[in-house]
Amino acid sequence: MPQSVTTDDLIRRRDRAFGAGARLFYDRPLHLVRGEGAYVFDVDGRRYVDMYNNVPCVGHAHPRVVEAMARQQATLNTHNRYLHEGAIALAERLTALQGVTECVVFSCSGTEAVENALRMARIATGARGIVCTDATYHGSNAWVGGLTRVGEAGPVDRDARAIAFPQTLRPITPGLTGEALTDAYLDRLDDAIDDLKASGSGFAAFIVCSILANEGLPDIPPGFMPRATQRVHAAGGLMIADEVQAGYGRTGQWWGYDAVGFRPDIVVTGKPMGAGLPLGATAASRAVVEGFRAETRYFNTFASSPLQAAVGMAVLDVIEQEGLVANVARVGAALKGALLNRRGRWDAIIDLRGVGLFLGIELVDATGEPDAALAFAIVCGLRDKGFLVSNAGIFNNVVKIRPPLVFSMADADAFLAAWDGVVAERRG
Amino acid sequence: MPQSVTTDDLIRRRDRAFGAGARLFYDRPLHLVRGEGAYVFDVDGRRYVDMYNNVPCVGHAHPRVVEAMARQQATLNTHNRYLHEGAIALAERLTALQGVTECVVFSCSGTEAVENALRMARIATGARGIVCTDATYHGSNAWVGGLTRVGEAGPVDRDARAIAFPQTLRPITPGLTGEALTDAYLDRLDDAIDDLKASGSGFAAFIVCSILANEGLPDIPPGFMPRATQRVHAAGGLMIADEVQAGYGRTGQWWGYDAVGFRPDIVVTGKPMGAGLPLGATAASRAVVEGFRAETRYFNTFASSPLQAAVGMAVLDVIEQEGLVANVARVGAALKGALLNRRGRWDAIIDLRGVGLFLGIELVDATGEPDAALAFAIVCGLRDKGFLVSNAGIFNNVVKIRPPLVFSMADADAFLAAWDGVVAERRG
Repeated sequence: MPQSVTTDDLIRRRDRAFGAGARLFYDRPLHLVRGEGAYVFDVDGRRYVDMYNNVPCVGHAHPRVVEAMARQQATLNTHNRYLHEGAIALAERLTALQGVTECVVFSCSGTEAVENALRMARIATGARGIVCTDATYHGSNAWVGGLTRVGEAGPVDRDARAIAFPQTLRPITPGLTGEALTDAYLDRLDDAIDDLKASGSGFAAFIVCSILANEGLPDIPPGFMPRATQRVHAAGGLMIADEVQAGYGRTGQWWGYDAVGFRPDIVVTGKPMGAGLPLGATAASRAVVEGFRAETRYFNTFASSPLQAAVGMAVLDVIEQEGLVANVARVGAALKGALLNRRGRWDAIIDLRGVGLFLGIELVDATGEPDAALAFAIVCGLRDKGFLVSNAGIFNNVVKIRPPLVFSMADADAFLAAWDGVVAERRG
Repeated sequence: MPQSVTTDDLIRRRDRAFGAGARLFYDRPLHLVRGEGAYVFDVDGRRYVDMYNNVPCVGHAHPRVVEAMARQQATLNTHNRYLHEGAIALAERLTALQGVTECVVFSCSGTEAVENALRMARIATGARGIVCTDATYHGSNAWVGGLTRVGEAGPVDRDARAIAFPQTLRPITPGLTGEALTDAYLDRLDDAIDDLKASGSGFAAFIVCSILANEGLPDIPPGFMPRATQRVHAAGGLMIADEVQAGYGRTGQWWGYDAVGFRPDIVVTGKPMGAGLPLGATAASRAVVEGFRAETRYFNTFASSPLQAAVGMAVLDVIEQEGLVANVARVGAALKGALLNRRGRWDAIIDLRGVGLFLGIELVDATGEPDAALAFAIVCGLRDKGFLVSNAGIFNNVVKIRPPLVFSMADADAFLAAWDGVVAERRG
């Protein structure tokens, strides 16, 4: 199917206006013009099932969100140095939902929220050292990006250490399983903390995506997260849960840290919070947040605004009123079960994992090596059949499934038929 | 006038939800519930003329902005790895308006846009050194904030140097005026560049708010900005204009760099762009932007979205269709003239300066020393009369006037009457 002239022209205009190098998805870029629920539509009117986007978590163009956004912008939208109930109420609701935090610092993105979490940890502990995992991504600015460079030699920040991310598929010590494998990864954490302390940086925090999304959603050795939390606390540090991808119902529970069983000290949220309105939050205990405020006098022009608050509340309303967390658990389990049934039918699938509506299908070639080209071919084949997924993971060989939370059982059935078709074409 | 119980309760809830230390404006905080044009309304229905806020540049709750925001959110709002015309068209329009740039990298705030500008300059020059002025503010994150700490010892970044900001009121060498004074400030710039080069950092850029807003809008010695640009270029660096406050018609021209007569290499915009929707932009030549994209692979989840584009275009539409740049020039000149007439009537006014709808009234005590307490008293007195301004500048003794661009001649007349009243009360 050739791209229309309009689309080709638009690609040229885009390269001129943004400068060449602003990446587009897929082998043939998608020119989208409309979205509704779990579906997006291209310029030719073709419908795609969106199985990639976590930002429009309540579905594209949800009328409740549109209405809240329009009503608040038509009423008042200012910065937070005037009193306004909106963001206060959102902070109260967020901390009540999280159960482990007391106070909130709002921002405009996950990157800003992660940076504020790191600053909170450093101020609270008086130390600078940060431990992260070695194939992670926590944000795009210079500091956060430099801390957690994906697929490069390691963190640029001299106060950071990256440890091997915990997984069962390719264990750090071949042959180890169960608690022994957990112990091996915990030893790496201890080593990193010791190294930071010996270097003079001290140890401030371990930051981790609760479900290791950018690592490709590995199955985590048993008890790693709660036991890592114990070790972090014993070493005087704080545990930061990056819930930008893991939170807001994605796993079929409200928070990723509940899904993997630990209680963080600082919770970072972002992408889904505002259904496309820039909105992030860093939540922690009163002492940690007030220490941060006293030290930094942090102010963010666009954050904690009545607009962020109204939209943020509408998103939570929809998740609760439409029962989306339960929908994620139900549809996610059914989809995972159906894909597990297919695993034995195609040797290329070495692993099928994930939880809720965040699944990964890891593909290998005939020799058992990670096959990124195959994953990309599958992604493009599914796009041609009207289903949008992507490839991810440390080897880019994991087909990533992460639809809006409104993704239905009927959508899942349609996807499975398309999956079978694409696989049949690959197997010839 | 005592605060209502509701307001006191809300302050307590706010301290609990945000943690104590999130600053509120004024001696008695304003509890706002509605805005319209240049006016905001508190919970008791009292109207205030907004003479502070530059974010709602086209006026609070402008129906054209509300309509564009709602329509786009109801149609499609995704990230920028799908093709969509919106942000492309906004980039084309922005660079055409700027006249000195070719390509745009959108972001969600002035802070992000400044950071991207600094990274562009470093990548383009291969050097790390940044020169800024010594009482500036370019953003809130760790790197940008550390580069430009206001009122502290100087930049935290070892690759940064701060120079005395150029001014005629308190010249760096007492007694110097005119071109000789300009030369004295340019020598400081040369010294800073030389020092960076000697240190091994090299010289990447001079970043400056075109109208030195945070320094208190000083009258700049003649020709400083264009001559500084020449020296920066001769030293192999780039000139970054921070137009977050200076741009978008604020001076009665589209851009602050036009008002002060220089042509920057990189233009940073923010606050007014989205009328309260988080939106920032960094614009430069194709070579500079493409170098940045190639090196950083920058991606920002919420930036370049159809929503940012629709709102950004609506703001530009309103500015053009309502003739707001001309309104700023006309009302700003009249207001400045009227205030200049009042200068001789009150010894506390040592200086009255600014351009367009961005004016500063600098106040001193009987001995001629900066009087921050007097400025704050004036600010609170004006609030009690229904006019919202603030105090700013390196000594916090400058009454800052910076209303939405829709501020009218009638608003200006009403303000002058209130001003006279407050001054009469102070003089007894």
